[in-house]
Formats: sequence, structure tokens, C-alpha cells
Amino acid sequence: MTLRALALAAAACFAIPLMPATGLGQDEAAPAPTEEVAEPAVAPAEAPPAEEAPAEGSYEAFMAGPDAAMFTVNNLWILLSAALVFIMHLGFCSVESGMCQKKNTVNILFKNVFIVCIGALGYMAWGFNAMYPGWEAGVSKDFFAMGSPLMNGFADEAVRTANVTNAYAGVNYTIWTDFIFQAMFAATAATIVSGAVAERVKLTSFMVYAAILVTFLYPITGSWKWGYGWLNTMGFADFAGSTLVHAFGGFASLAAIIVLGPRNGKFTADGVKPILPHNLPLANIGVFMLFLGWFGFNGGSVLSADPEKVSRVFVTTAMSGFAGGIAAIFASWALLKKPDLSMALNGILAGLVGITAGADVISPWFSVVVGLISGTLVVCSVLFFDKIRIDDPVGAVSVHGVCGIFGTLAVAFFGGGNLMTQIIGTFSISAFAFVASLILFIILKVTLGVRVSAQEEQEGLDIAEHGSPAYSDGH
Amino acid sequence: MTLRALALAAAACFAIPLMPATGLGQDEAAPAPTEEVAEPAVAPAEAPPAEEAPAEGSYEAFMAGPDAAMFTVNNLWILLSAALVFIMHLGFCSVESGMCQKKNTVNILFKNVFIVCIGALGYMAWGFNAMYPGWEAGVSKDFFAMGSPLMNGFADEAVRTANVTNAYAGVNYTIWTDFIFQAMFAATAATIVSGAVAERVKLTSFMVYAAILVTFLYPITGSWKWGYGWLNTMGFADFAGSTLVHAFGGFASLAAIIVLGPRNGKFTADGVKPILPHNLPLANIGVFMLFLGWFGFNGGSVLSADPEKVSRVFVTTAMSGFAGGIAAIFASWALLKKPDLSMALNGILAGLVGITAGADVISPWFSVVVGLISGTLVVCSVLFFDKIRIDDPVGAVSVHGVCGIFGTLAVAFFGGGNLMTQIIGTFSISAFAFVASLILFIILKVTLGVRVSAQEEQEGLDIAEHGSPAYSDGH
Amino acid sequence: MTLRALALAAAACFAIPLMPATGLGQDEAAPAPTEEVAEPAVAPAEAPPAEEAPAEGSYEAFMAGPDAAMFTVNNLWILLSAALVFIMHLGFCSVESGMCQKKNTVNILFKNVFIVCIGALGYMAWGFNAMYPGWEAGVSKDFFAMGSPLMNGFADEAVRTANVTNAYAGVNYTIWTDFIFQAMFAATAATIVSGAVAERVKLTSFMVYAAILVTFLYPITGSWKWGYGWLNTMGFADFAGSTLVHAFGGFASLAAIIVLGPRNGKFTADGVKPILPHNLPLANIGVFMLFLGWFGFNGGSVLSADPEKVSRVFVTTAMSGFAGGIAAIFASWALLKKPDLSMALNGILAGLVGITAGADVISPWFSVVVGLISGTLVVCSVLFFDKIRIDDPVGAVSVHGVCGIFGTLAVAFFGGGNLMTQIIGTFSISAFAFVASLILFIILKVTLGVRVSAQEEQEGLDIAEHGSPAYSDGH
Repeated sequence: MTLRALALAAAACFAIPLMPATGLGQDEAAPAPTEEVAEPAVAPAEAPPAEEAPAEGSYEAFMAGPDAAMFTVNNLWILLSAALVFIMHLGFCSVESGMCQKKNTVNILFKNVFIVCIGALGYMAWGFNAMYPGWEAGVSKDFFAMGSPLMNGFADEAVRTANVTNAYAGVNYTIWTDFIFQAMFAATAATIVSGAVAERVKLTSFMVYAAILVTFLYPITGSWKWGYGWLNTMGFADFAGSTLVHAFGGFASLAAIIVLGPRNGKFTADGVKPILPHNLPLANIGVFMLFLGWFGFNGGSVLSADPEKVSRVFVTTAMSGFAGGIAAIFASWALLKKPDLSMALNGILAGLVGITAGADVISPWFSVVVGLISGTLVVCSVLFFDKIRIDDPVGAVSVHGVCGIFGTLAVAFFGGGNLMTQIIGTFSISAFAFVASLILFIILKVTLGVRVSAQEEQEGLDIAEHGSPAYSDGH
Repeated sequence: MTLRALALAAAACFAIPLMPATGLGQDEAAPAPTEEVAEPAVAPAEAPPAEEAPAEGSYEAFMAGPDAAMFTVNNLWILLSAALVFIMHLGFCSVESGMCQKKNTVNILFKNVFIVCIGALGYMAWGFNAMYPGWEAGVSKDFFAMGSPLMNGFADEAVRTANVTNAYAGVNYTIWTDFIFQAMFAATAATIVSGAVAERVKLTSFMVYAAILVTFLYPITGSWKWGYGWLNTMGFADFAGSTLVHAFGGFASLAAIIVLGPRNGKFTADGVKPILPHNLPLANIGVFMLFLGWFGFNGGSVLSADPEKVSRVFVTTAMSGFAGGIAAIFASWALLKKPDLSMALNGILAGLVGITAGADVISPWFSVVVGLISGTLVVCSVLFFDKIRIDDPVGAVSVHGVCGIFGTLAVAFFGGGNLMTQIIGTFSISAFAFVASLILFIILKVTLGVRVSAQEEQEGLDIAEHGSPAYSDGH
Repeated sequence: MTLRALALAAAACFAIPLMPATGLGQDEAAPAPTEEVAEPAVAPAEAPPAEEAPAEGSYEAFMAGPDAAMFTVNNLWILLSAALVFIMHLGFCSVESGMCQKKNTVNILFKNVFIVCIGALGYMAWGFNAMYPGWEAGVSKDFFAMGSPLMNGFADEAVRTANVTNAYAGVNYTIWTDFIFQAMFAATAATIVSGAVAERVKLTSFMVYAAILVTFLYPITGSWKWGYGWLNTMGFADFAGSTLVHAFGGFASLAAIIVLGPRNGKFTADGVKPILPHNLPLANIGVFMLFLGWFGFNGGSVLSADPEKVSRVFVTTAMSGFAGGIAAIFASWALLKKPDLSMALNGILAGLVGITAGADVISPWFSVVVGLISGTLVVCSVLFFDKIRIDDPVGAVSVHGVCGIFGTLAVAFFGGGNLMTQIIGTFSISAFAFVASLILFIILKVTLGVRVSAQEEQEGLDIAEHGSPAYSDGH
């Protein structure tokens, strides 16, 4: 057959448009436009030829049933949300590198590219199962995911149907969708830390830190709420993760930069020396990408395409982000006596972080209030951390930590949540993140070391660690 | 309860994977992958436990009915369109800053960030209700939106159902979706002006101007057509806003730059001095983001996910944009004797603006024709405005104003519209925009002043107004 | 009527909010939020007023039928995929220009903008019909598309219904959707070549080359598989185009750069001189945009929104991309003794190319394996081509050619495909691309010339060919 096929191939290469078709393809080939009305002769060739009805209980039977269209649109929205959350990683890359010095750009991009890759792989191998351990079903789960359908596909038809229809735990999407949406979320916590430790952290140590944080630590606190754990039982409300993702990342950051210390030359005897961002259009691209992605981050957290819920979440999310920008513009103008672009951008992010816990329950008008408070808070917080000489180059602790906690409490103030429960929830998770990050960073400090040498810091990490500048003028 | 909870929290922090679940969560928690077939025991826990049927006329009853899936996909598409239109603001930021000088980059980004924030807030508080005053329903509406469900959510179940099902004025999405899609549109008109006045406008004056334009002026002309006003009655066709958005912004720009005057050094006794763009990759990113967003701008203006209409609009929109790029490449090559990237990019935008009025009625082949004409027109127009010494740094009047009018007339030439009606519509709106902008800008000129000093212009607005360069080389 | 209308217009301009409505609009006007429950009086005015039932067999009847919602969501997903594939062109622009020297940036952007524009136009006029010639239906098709509904819309109701419902060849989207999705694909092959020939190719010759490649050559091999040609008959598996798009582009590139020769100064007597990328944040943006677009490239190739298939393709695509990044990081670190950002980015792309042929049949776990192999392979391949002194500035042959072939074979190794069939398919298409590109490039070499002068190359193509730098510092 091989020789005949090769001869056919050779002949076909030069005779294509003349060659008569010898058979029909099945699936992915898109047919040609029919200039005439499709004749009856054509359609049956495409339609399953008088196929028997799909077996009862099969995926095919489900897709021929009354729930199929709704399931399909719900599933599609969560997949689109996963893609939107993915693009937030470009946002983080761009904000963090744009806000830092030119000489450390490659280093920041490299760290963030590494985090999103290792984060998803670690989440697939371990985190997903650890975060959703099946407590709610009374199932004793295997934590290590290597044996799950997620890794290998489905052993038989019954396992398949149980995982790709609304039989999958009664939700509105398949197991694959569930995983990819959550995996895109998982890496964000570690990415937040990346910005805070930028410009002086040792690359290899940070890679170890980030891999452990995203694979093992984030799923623990995640399981407390989203894995039906004790905070969920208690009624803690954190819709899309003001605490579970943002405050977690923010307080992990705070521990890391306390251990790491400030950049050389930032805090001098003469006061705080501003270290200017090297590329504000890049930071601006980053913030818009984060805002875009937040429609998936919050909108996808509805976990269906329910029209009322998703559209309301779009409104509260966007309005809080816009209000955050306005508040930060005027707050920083009042305090710094100039219109400050970096603060405006951080204000938008602050508003988005702030509404994340309550985007589903806070009214549009109060979402504006949440944004205004968050945008004001982030300006004050950035100035405060400078004052107490904690060096956070991109304001990660202020944006994600402080506004993450505020947003979680805002559910009690503006969305009907219980204040004490919200306090317990946000502080226990923030404290866990802080302590775990502190321990991990200290262990790394005494083993691998966490800080580059003063000379490398001076030279810039791009040349010192990567041997490559971010911007070459040629030759 | 608090102490008990705290103790529980402390215990839980270290015993998580071992802890038995004590209860079930409800909604947003995503369950674990079921490695076995989901046992019957699990599913009922998730499914509403033998719930009573939803009350007749309620949202829940609607969502259990036959229209739910179609409503959900329609609503989802308009939400996605809102997100796509949002990202056009990144496009505007990036095109405008990339096309201008390095020393004014922060200023341009700051203006655009401000506009999108204040635009959405102003539209929420005032513009949305003003633009859709309810004339069609004979409803006497409260113009000030503070009391509407949009701000506060729903007072009771009947109001809720009336606003989040297809009872909402017979359309295919919720009130929240309607608002967020329109709010993203609203700010574009002011953003168009931002590019035209760049590099010499006084920041505070422009902020006042933009806030008034987007909040009060844009909804007036918007209501003439989209609010069921007199132009709609007359049969004026402007599918997605070649006139209502683009010509409006373009002719508001023209008035502003006539009052403002050209940048110093642009028009000298020796002729026109080109002022080169400082970052063409940034401008290129901007144009691609605008193109991407236009799928939502035009595609979302179908106001449903109707397969025939949306797919046809995708084709006409894209092909006109591509044809605009090709036409501008060859037109500028012929006139300027070199392949000009800026012109190619403006040609793409011109094609997109040109098809916006008739994307739903012009055939694909004629959409190519519209693009070719628009792309040629924009090149001639840019050269013309340079010749008559009107300084428009990014070509906003040519791209949005001239091609906006052409596109509106093209509906008569290629899409079956009435030429006289189209002329009346596009000129009355363009004239309103021009006159209103002129008056407003003159008032600002004699009060706050609209132009920076010659020294600030020379130094660049980034340092003069913001005290921060866009690109710092460090230290 | 005109005078009356003008008077009405003038009056209306200043009396808008007071003017009573004189009639109702129909379609695109979005109504105002109803603060009260919508009264029965309003709804009927919006709903079709006791319309007769749509004619049997019409589009309207189809949309009132049981398949409408599913058809709408399927069609929407393919449209969204087209938008995602569109944004891959921004990815290519940004990766290629970021990876090359500053002095050739405008030239690269200009080429890519030209390609996407001419590619879509050529595909509309010729390629679409040539690629899907209707063999499967026994239809003798007109290859030149000017007379088709695609260009002109529908002649009558029967043709319309046959093209915008699932009567359109039994698929799940309209003819417009089919076209725009495929058109976005078509230009990618030529764009791949653009990166390989960058920094020394003569602009006009490349424009001719690219237009011919995308319009006439790409549809030939495309038809072998996706047009129901001989490779489809044989059972060749290439889900979304590891071979049909990527290896095609990669081996067309290889032929072109063999004819073109290396950049001056790249290979010297002293060895290979690295030519550094001029803007790595830009390249990083490009890779993330490509990754985002790949969700549409692969996910849309399901040709429906089927929940199981699309969600699985999202997982395999993303995990292979992430694994490719990780593998390239460690492989390049081992070989080059430093953490290399460019290699990490190319590794991600390699993983995405590698999984493209089998994203629908390879299990998630094996998709990680495919990514790990692809990421390692691309590092070795880049070093190999440097060693044999073939100069490929962005690694296009390695990423798209080598990993495209590997990915196609991986369907046999990991996805149940027949190895011999996969070998025949990938090599015959790669060989066709190589030979056709070689012939075309040689013809161009002896006619127009394909290479800029040494002086122009030294000066940079931005000034030499375009008279404009990409980055101006002003004045």
C-alpha cells in the first residue's frame, strides 16, 4: 500500500484540481459554499446515515436531549472565561515589567512565563485534586491526579458520560472545562508575588518558591472555601477570590519582601528615592489586559452563562474598576500634587480586586462605592508601605493584599454578608499565606539564598542572570 | 460563636487534608473530578432537592422555559461584545500614544484612562437614560438614572423579571447587558477627540471637555437614532455608528483643533514639518486591538447572536478593514512614493469606520468596495488637512469624521438606503457635534484656557504636567 | 420632503429632550431600562404584531425550530474562533518584530499588515472555493468565487436558507462563518515565512511571493485534506493544521531562506554571531497573543461548540503549550548555561504547533508529553540550523516546520493514527511547500530580485525602504 500511496501522492501533487474525488471525509473538513440550493443528494451523505439512536445514558443521548443547548452555551462561556483569565498573565507580565527598571525586564518576563507554565502543570498533576478533594460527595479521593480521567481520558463510556455532561457533579460544564478554568486561576497567586520581589530576587530560588506556592499552598486555602471546606461551611463569601486569590498573593508577597529586603538605593538616609517605571505604555497594556481578563475571572465564576448573574457581574466588575481609576486619580492628585498615571492604573486594578469577592451580590451603585474606596485605599497604602520602608516595586501588597481584604469585608458592608465570618475568612487565609510564604522564603534564604549580589543588582538581572538585554539597539 | 470559629480556623490550617467535611456548599464551588461514575447519591445533593416549580412569571420560570437557551446565547454574545468594545480603548490608547512624540506619551495614556473611567460612570449616572428616553414606549422617563434598577438592583420580583428576561423591551438580553454594551460605546466618541488634540491640550480643560462630551452631548445625538428619535422615524440608517459614534467624534475633534491651533513647529514658512511617531509597534498593537474590538462593535450591534446576521457582519466588517489597508498602502505609495506603515494602519481603521453604518445591509463584495474607497479617502484626507494647515496628529478627523460620513452615505450607494435621508442624518449629527464642541471648547478657552504654554509644549507634557517620563532608563 | 426634513432637523437639534416621539423604530435601537414593570401596552409594540408563521423551509422557520439554539451557539463559537485566529496575526507581527533588530521593525510590521489584508482578499476571491472545491458533493464547482453568494449575498430565499442554516453542507454554521474562519487561517502560512526572511528580503518581491503563496499555493495542499482530497481519503489526520498550516509555512520558509542567504555578518569566519532581539516585551506580547489565538485555531477546528470536544481541545492545547515552555527552559538552560527567554517563548509556540494535529485525539497526559518533546526539539533545531549556517531570525523553520512534522507524527505515536499515512501526508505537503516556494523564490530572484543591497541591509530597511524609523525620539 505504501508504494501505491506514494505514487498517488506524487501524481496528486500536480494534478489536484483535475482529480476526481474518491471518497468522503468525515469530520473536520469544511465543505464548499453551495451556490445552488443544496440538493437532497448531498445532505444525507453528511448527516449520520440512518444511524441508530444513541445508547441511553451516553453523551450522545445527552446531546440529543433537551438540556444540550443550554449545557453547550454554559460550557462555552466557562471555556471563554478560561481564555480570558489566561490573558491576565500577559497583563501581569506587562504591568510588572513596565513598572520596573529596563535592566530587569527579561528577568521579570522570564519569571512570569515560567510561573504560568509550571503553575498549570503542577495544578494538573496535584493542585486540582487537592483543591477539590470531593468532601462534599463523601468520596475518599486520590490526591495525586496521575490516575484520574483528567490525565488519561476516560476508561469507559460510563466514566465519560459522568464527566462531560451535567452529571459531572451537577454543574454546567465538563471536567476539562472545570480544570482549565481553575488552572488558569491557580497561577495568578504566584504571579502576584513575582511583581513584589522583582529586581532583586534570585531566579532559581524564586522558581522553586513559585512552584511550591502554586502547586501545594494555594490549593490548601482554596479548598477551605471552593473545595467545600470549613470556611464554606461557615458561610464565608468570596465570590471570585478577593481573598482566595488576591489577598493570598498579596500577603504571600508581603512575607517575601520582608525577608528579601528593599532594593538597594530605594531607602536612603535622605528619604525614599523613587525608582521610575521604564515603560508606561507597556504597563498600560498590562492593565487593560488584566481588566479584559477580569470579565472571565469574575464572569466565569458564575460557573454558568446565566443571563442575569453574568450580566450583573459584568456591570459590577467594570464599574468598580472604572471607579477605582477615578478615585486613584483624584486621591493621588490631592496627595502628590500631580496627575499620576501609575496610580490611576493601580486604582483600576484596586477597584477590580475590591469587587471580586462580592461582584455577584453587591448592587451596581455600591460597586461604584467599592471601587471609589479601593482606589483611594491603594494610593494611601502605597504611600504607607513606602513610609514604613517596605519596598514593593509594583504595589502588589497594596493592590492585591489590602484591597483584597477590603473587598472581602465589603461583602458584609454592601452585599449582605456576615462581618465576623468575612473577617475570620479573610484573615485566616491571609495569615496562612503570610506564614507559609515566610517559612518557605526563610528556608530558601538559608539554603539556596534568595537575593542576588549587590553587583548583579546594580548591573541588572537581564545581563547578570540571562546574559541578554530586553532592548538591543543592534549589532 | 466567634471564639469557636477562630479555634476551628486555627485547627483547620494544619489539618486540612485530613478533615472530614461537615457540610455542603451551595453555589460557586466547583466539585472535584469524579473518577468513578458519579453515584446517584451525589447528584441529588447538587440538584435542587425536589424543589417546587418556580413561580409563574418569575425569572426562574423563564429560565426553565423554551426560550431560555436562545436568550442565554444572545445575552452572552452581547456581553462578549461589550468586552470586545472595551478592548478598543486599549487600541485607542496605543494608537494615539504610538503615533505621537515620546515626550507626550504619559499624557495621552492618562487622558484615555480618565476618559474610559469617567465615560462609563457618567453614562451610568446620566447618559444611558438620556439616550434611551423611552419615547417608543410612551413612557415619561426620569432622565437622572440614580433611582433606576441599573443603579440599585431590583425592588421586587416583578421588576426583576421585567428587566432580565426577554420581557425587557422585547430584546434579547438583560438590562445589565444593555447598559454595559452601550457604556463601552459611549466613551469612544471622546477618545477620538483625545488623539486630535494631543501634544498641546491642557489636561484639566480636556478632562472637563471629555466628561461633558460623553455624558451630555453624545447621548443627545444618540437618542435621535438609537433612542427612537426623529432620525429613526425618518428612516436614517446607521447600523453601528459610522455617524453616531465616529463622525460625531471626528467633527467634535475638528472643532477642537481649530480652536486649539496646530502644534508649534508643525507648519512653518518652509512648509509642513513631519512630526514622527515615537513607537510604531505600539501603534500597530493599537490598530489590531481596534480591529478585534470592531467584531464586537459591529457584531454586537446586531443585538442578538442571530447566525445569519452576525456572521454576515463579521465578513463585511473584516473585509472592509482589510480592503481599507490595501487601498491605503497603494494610494500612499503612489502619492508619497514609499510604503507607509502609518497610512496602512489608518487605512485599516478607515475601512472599519466606513463599513460601520452598513455592515448589516451591504453585500460582502460591496464591503470590499467600501473598504477600498475608505482607505483611499483617508490618505487623501490626511494630506488635505496637512495642506490647509489643520494639525491632527493621529488623523482622527480623516479616519473617523471623513470616513464616518462616507460610510453613512455608502448605505445609500451600496445598501439600499435613501441618499437624502442619509445626508440629512450624517450632516445634522456631524454639525451638532462640531457646533457643540466648538462652543464648549471656546468657553473653556476663555475660562480655564485650553493650551499648554509654549515652554511646556517644548519640554513635553509628560514632564510638564505629570512629572514622569514614559520611558525611564533607570536610576 | 427634503426641506421639511431639514427644518425638522434644525428644530430637533435644540429641542430634543422635549420632543414627543412621532413613531417607532424597528430593529437596532436598544430600548430604555424599564423602571416599572413593562406594561402590556409596550411589549406588543416590540413583538412581531401577530405575524403570520414563517414560510416553511425558510431561515425564519429554521430559527423558530428546535435546532435554532444549538445552531446559534455553534455558529457563535466559530465566529469567536475567527476573531481569536485574527489576533494571532498581531502575535506574529509582535513576535517577529520584537525578535529582530530595531532598524527593521517598520518593514516587518508593514509586511505582516500587508499579508493579512491581501491574504483575506485573495482567499475571498479565489482560495476559499479552490480549497473546498465540492468534490465530496460531486459538484462541479466554479473555482473563481466572484459569482458565489459569498461575494454577492443570496439570489433568492432558497439559496439563502441553503447557506445560513445547518442545510449548509450539514455543518453547524453559516457560509459567512465558514469563510471568515478559514480566511483568518489562510494568511498564517505566509506570515510564517515573513519571519524567516526578515531583515534582508526585498519588500516588493516578498509582497508578490506572499500574495501567490496564500492565494494559490496554500489552498492546493489544503484541499488535499480539508477539501476532501486524496490525503483525506487515505485517512491522514491533521486536526487543525500542524502540517497543513505550520509545516507548510515552515518548509516554504526553508526554501526561501536557502535562496535568500543569511543576513550579512551572521556567519563569520569566527563563528556564528548572535543578532540580538530588539524588544523582548514586544515578543512576549506576541507569544501570549498567539497562545490566546490558538484556543480559536484549535478549538474552532472542532467546527462546533460540542462541549466534550472543545473543552478537551482547550486542555490539550494549553497543556502542550505550557509543557513546551518548561521543556525549552530546561533544555536551553542545559545547553546554553543560562535561562533564555527567547527559547522559552519559542518552546511555548513549539508545544502549540506540536499538539495542533492531534489536539482532538491525544489524551491530556500525552499532550504534556507532546509539549515536552516539542519544546526540547525546537531548542535543538534552532541550534542545528545555526550550525549548518541557515539563518532564520525568528526560528520559523524550527517552530513551525520541525515541530509541525513532529506534531503530525505524534498523532500516530500518541493518538492512534497510522504512522505511514501520517508520514506520507506530512512529507508530501512539506515537500510541495518547499518545492513550490523554491521555484517561486528563484523566479523572483532572477526577475525582481529578492534581496536588498548590502548598504540597505546595513542601514536598516526602515529607513532604506520606508523612510521612517519605528521609534523616533522626536523632532
